[in-house]
Amino acid sequence: MESSSSSSSTSDLTAEEFRKKLVSTLDARYFCKSSFKIYGAVAGLNDYGPPGCAVKQNVLAFWRKHFVLEENMLEVDGPCITPAVVFKASGHVDKFTDFMVKDEITGECHRADHLLKDFCTSKLEKDTSTLSEEKVREYKDVLATLDGISLEELGLKIKEYGIVSPTTNNPLSDPYPFNLMFQTSIGPSSMTPGYMRPETAQGIFVNFKDLYYYNGNKLPFAAAQVGQAFRNEISPRQGLLRVREFTLAEIEHFVDPEDKSHPKFSEVADLEFWMFPRNEQLTRKDAVKVRLGDAVTNGTVNNETLGYFIGRVYLFLTRLGINKERLRFRQHLADEMAHYAVDCWDAEIECSYGWIECVGIADRSAYDLRAHSEKSGTPLVAHEKFSATTKVEKLVISPVKKELGREFKGDHKKIIEALEAMDEKEAMEMKAALVLNGEVKFQVCTLEKAFTIKSNMVSISKEVQKEPPRVFTPSVIEPSFGIGRIIYCLFEHSFYTRQNKAGDEHLNVFRFPPAVAPIKCKVFPLVQNPEFEAVAKKISKSLTSSGISNETDATSKSIGKRYAIADELGVPFVITVDNTATVTIRERDSRDQIRVEIGKVACVMQDLIAGVRTLEDTPGITVLSRFRMRFSNLYRLCLKILIPQ
Amino acid sequence: MESSSSSSSTSDLTAEEFRKKLVSTLDARYFCKSSFKIYGAVAGLNDYGPPGCAVKQNVLAFWRKHFVLEENMLEVDGPCITPAVVFKASGHVDKFTDFMVKDEITGECHRADHLLKDFCTSKLEKDTSTLSEEKVREYKDVLATLDGISLEELGLKIKEYGIVSPTTNNPLSDPYPFNLMFQTSIGPSSMTPGYMRPETAQGIFVNFKDLYYYNGNKLPFAAAQVGQAFRNEISPRQGLLRVREFTLAEIEHFVDPEDKSHPKFSEVADLEFWMFPRNEQLTRKDAVKVRLGDAVTNGTVNNETLGYFIGRVYLFLTRLGINKERLRFRQHLADEMAHYAVDCWDAEIECSYGWIECVGIADRSAYDLRAHSEKSGTPLVAHEKFSATTKVEKLVISPVKKELGREFKGDHKKIIEALEAMDEKEAMEMKAALVLNGEVKFQVCTLEKAFTIKSNMVSISKEVQKEPPRVFTPSVIEPSFGIGRIIYCLFEHSFYTRQNKAGDEHLNVFRFPPAVAPIKCKVFPLVQNPEFEAVAKKISKSLTSSGISNETDATSKSIGKRYAIADELGVPFVITVDNTATVTIRERDSRDQIRVEIGKVACVMQDLIAGVRTLEDTPGITVLSRFRMRFSNLYRLCLKILIPQ
Repeated sequence: MESSSSSSSTSDLTAEEFRKKLVSTLDARYFCKSSFKIYGAVAGLNDYGPPGCAVKQNVLAFWRKHFVLEENMLEVDGPCITPAVVFKASGHVDKFTDFMVKDEITGECHRADHLLKDFCTSKLEKDTSTLSEEKVREYKDVLATLDGISLEELGLKIKEYGIVSPTTNNPLSDPYPFNLMFQTSIGPSSMTPGYMRPETAQGIFVNFKDLYYYNGNKLPFAAAQVGQAFRNEISPRQGLLRVREFTLAEIEHFVDPEDKSHPKFSEVADLEFWMFPRNEQLTRKDAVKVRLGDAVTNGTVNNETLGYFIGRVYLFLTRLGINKERLRFRQHLADEMAHYAVDCWDAEIECSYGWIECVGIADRSAYDLRAHSEKSGTPLVAHEKFSATTKVEKLVISPVKKELGREFKGDHKKIIEALEAMDEKEAMEMKAALVLNGEVKFQVCTLEKAFTIKSNMVSISKEVQKEPPRVFTPSVIEPSFGIGRIIYCLFEHSFYTRQNKAGDEHLNVFRFPPAVAPIKCKVFPLVQNPEFEAVAKKISKSLTSSGISNETDATSKSIGKRYAIADELGVPFVITVDNTATVTIRERDSRDQIRVEIGKVACVMQDLIAGVRTLEDTPGITVLSRFRMRFSNLYRLCLKILIPQ
Repeated sequence: MESSSSSSSTSDLTAEEFRKKLVSTLDARYFCKSSFKIYGAVAGLNDYGPPGCAVKQNVLAFWRKHFVLEENMLEVDGPCITPAVVFKASGHVDKFTDFMVKDEITGECHRADHLLKDFCTSKLEKDTSTLSEEKVREYKDVLATLDGISLEELGLKIKEYGIVSPTTNNPLSDPYPFNLMFQTSIGPSSMTPGYMRPETAQGIFVNFKDLYYYNGNKLPFAAAQVGQAFRNEISPRQGLLRVREFTLAEIEHFVDPEDKSHPKFSEVADLEFWMFPRNEQLTRKDAVKVRLGDAVTNGTVNNETLGYFIGRVYLFLTRLGINKERLRFRQHLADEMAHYAVDCWDAEIECSYGWIECVGIADRSAYDLRAHSEKSGTPLVAHEKFSATTKVEKLVISPVKKELGREFKGDHKKIIEALEAMDEKEAMEMKAALVLNGEVKFQVCTLEKAFTIKSNMVSISKEVQKEPPRVFTPSVIEPSFGIGRIIYCLFEHSFYTRQNKAGDEHLNVFRFPPAVAPIKCKVFPLVQNPEFEAVAKKISKSLTSSGISNETDATSKSIGKRYAIADELGVPFVITVDNTATVTIRERDSRDQIRVEIGKVACVMQDLIAGVRTLEDTPGITVLSRFRMRFSNLYRLCLKILIPQ
């Protein structure tokens, strides 16, 4: 494809140069900007402008179709404001912290682990020639274990290395934990403390009982929630990746811990993609291409349901436009996971910042439901269905108290105890003897004496009994999507530059798939003339009523300039009105064109965007002959991206 | 229609009884429930369960299509967390308050005006026989002026009437203002106070400059934002209507204050609906049916753009399913509006609580942009386009300082001032005299003396000058939609009960239009049998891949019972598998059925939901003959609701 060859200009850039170019384009075209800029902006808060907002809506719509609709998930929508008791139960009040140090003079706060990381990274990069081998090893060890570092260790290292404030060079306080939740107070009396939720998941867990009932008291089922989440980062970094408010889309799939099979696993078993299992991280340190079915069969992935969601996440991300060669599923190391987690995989996407965690797919066992059951006193449990069919044979020994009492008087209680304590073998032997002889000698240890037991004194039988229904706390498998991070990575993977026709300028292009593109098409009257403008208006109206977002650019700018603006917004198709009977449609990446009758434009556009049939099926279209082949290729590409294989 | 005749059972109920029945259905079917119930719930926080969440998504999707797509609005998406400075500028920090009183013993808080309202209402209702005519008038006056009551008056009335706490009968504190914004702190240092936004509008205003630039520096344009908003109500009432967190959808239409015409006004001018202008409220006290075009022409509605949005809001609400006879547009009284507002209309929907404000449509003049310009120091202004073409003739008087100084020495400054102060008539007479005589006598008042001015001492001319482009602060017209309130009213207007076939039970039904219905169709195998279940599965799969939300109910419940459950969720169509070649589709409200080939079900359902063609166009369908007429009527009804007339 032309786009890949001419995009060499961006591949020549360093990661930082590429990012700078991308971010300035995102800002200039108003995909995203810092929020509240006229008041000096606030770190970690960003706005989506019109094209960014449309991309986000498209990503969420596709997410809902791919997950909620396809799997019949129960979507809920609860508040961001949450009473403290919920996060007390979940552990967030006590443990959702980062370690912070304060500038002892200005009071400015820094994330302690970031400062230690920067110190070690900088030492390894800059002082490489003067460092002893031992020191190099030490710094590398610090970096490798930074994720799980304790408060004490962190304090010792900062002291030992003499780390000071990066902005003022002032000395720093000892590190201390800082809770990342935004706190507020609910109601006027300040008697109900509350937090802005740092995740949407808890709003599903607390409703488990209602959801389970809604689902006909049947497992498994999945609930989903899309919404804002808030984390009061100490010092937000990485622009659009680490922010203080963001959109999460979370799925909680509730399942019987004794049966984590998935009926649709076979539909994803043959997918092959990059996985980075624990073992590879600990030894070879390279991701491997694995068939998902094999990863589940050989136990790399803990269970089928976890595997099914890994496969579905892979399909979701690649269909959105994420490059499958820059996507990997990394398994958490044992010490990275929470103590209760069974297995956990992150979908990591490579971008200019390195490999970024965009989706977490975790088997969280029964932890969350148990925590809320305990704290609230409401049992959040499931009852096994159809357990009436699992029957057990059970030994039943029924001493006849009246007969035994009459015969043995004061001893009868101890005799009854001894009879009831018989194991199956003893009991069945006694039964046989009683049937044969009508009586049997029975040694009672506690009385150190033998007694003669008769048939009428005890009945012994084996009965088939129904097992009482098993009550259990379901396990939960949680795919959790950071929508903003996915969108940022999508921006990186979609962005390229190519030379203009004159060859004197590099133009920016976003190669969004049609389903993701913020505006599906632009309509350009070739020249400013009332006839062409009337046609453009008519076409725009027909597109709008077909639900196709479009914009008309009737300015006097050259057609080339207008194409360049459309490309930079990632608009996949441009309709140029150069005639009052037919118009040309130009595709963004190939720059190929077809000619279409005006009355058929909306219909053709609908098909092009949805990718539901080939060009040849659509009457009234003339593919401009010299482009015929290439446009068909493009069309097949659209089909590949949009239609589940 | 059958539904309306058999829904008489709900119309017999009092408003409270009807609401109780509705709300218990909403809870039982998990449309909405109180949030965090296992922890005792929090007043004013609610969850949408699966069907409620789907209705909300459908309402928002339709809102975006009806407004954002149709008008090419610039949608933005900014954070809920907002630095305090923004709400300082907008006036929310100082004025977004309710008056509160505290129980002097328990500390419990109450909204002062609510207590006064309850007191007067109860007096008028209960003590009606014992009250003097004067007292009746007094209580009525209090109720009528409650909206604008001052802190002092409120305190006096509470004292005078001896109002005590309604829950404890304890004495109350004096009222004091309580700010309704949820406060928090941004970042770790508690040096950046922040609020959870109480509206989304400010996030648009602060970005005016970027939006204006994105729009090619042209007016008018509209920006839109959908998102969560937060109000820390003192004592939330009215269940789902007055809540602490809710979804707003707001439009800010920026326009030249000197030209508030709208190019598409003619498209809504012929709409006729209930309006309740200021005059009618002050005199006849009854809403009137008005043609929108007339309301704008005769000045009832201030301008065309405001009128256009009133019309579009009417279409939006009625197409959603709001009963047009229970919808009115009420104009704000002069003392109800903010001092800067030009005109303001509320779309009020009648429900069991009375007339509820669901959409506010206000011409807010330039207030918000000016406030942020001042506070931030960033001018939020527009430049008039094409002003280069408006040229003006201007008088130019240029005294020649050198000549005047040489001739008149110390007096020359005052003479220059006097020359420049001449009006057009004087100046042109001087010019004529100088041309004729080369000199002229000129009386300078400030020197009480005449001087001889010669041709070389002053040049006087009329020059044609380009007017400098007009710079102005745009006016903003703001339609603001309380999505939760609209949805609640939609629930009320859609809910009815009807007798079952046996006539011994009243069944609940929601008559949602297909576009709003949470689940578009259910699939029922008539009996539990592998063949029918396989067909049901196949149909469900084809529906899902066509993007149609569906659920299969293969339980052994009777078909009538399953219909009843579907009706109570507002599912418009049920597909019953009673055959392996064709199935029946049953419509909810008419209970009519048609028979359709299995392979065509998805396609027929798509058309039924979208209402894009008549039944007769769809080959392969046999309308079950006895229902033919009625189903066609239903179909026309769908068309009427869904297709813009």
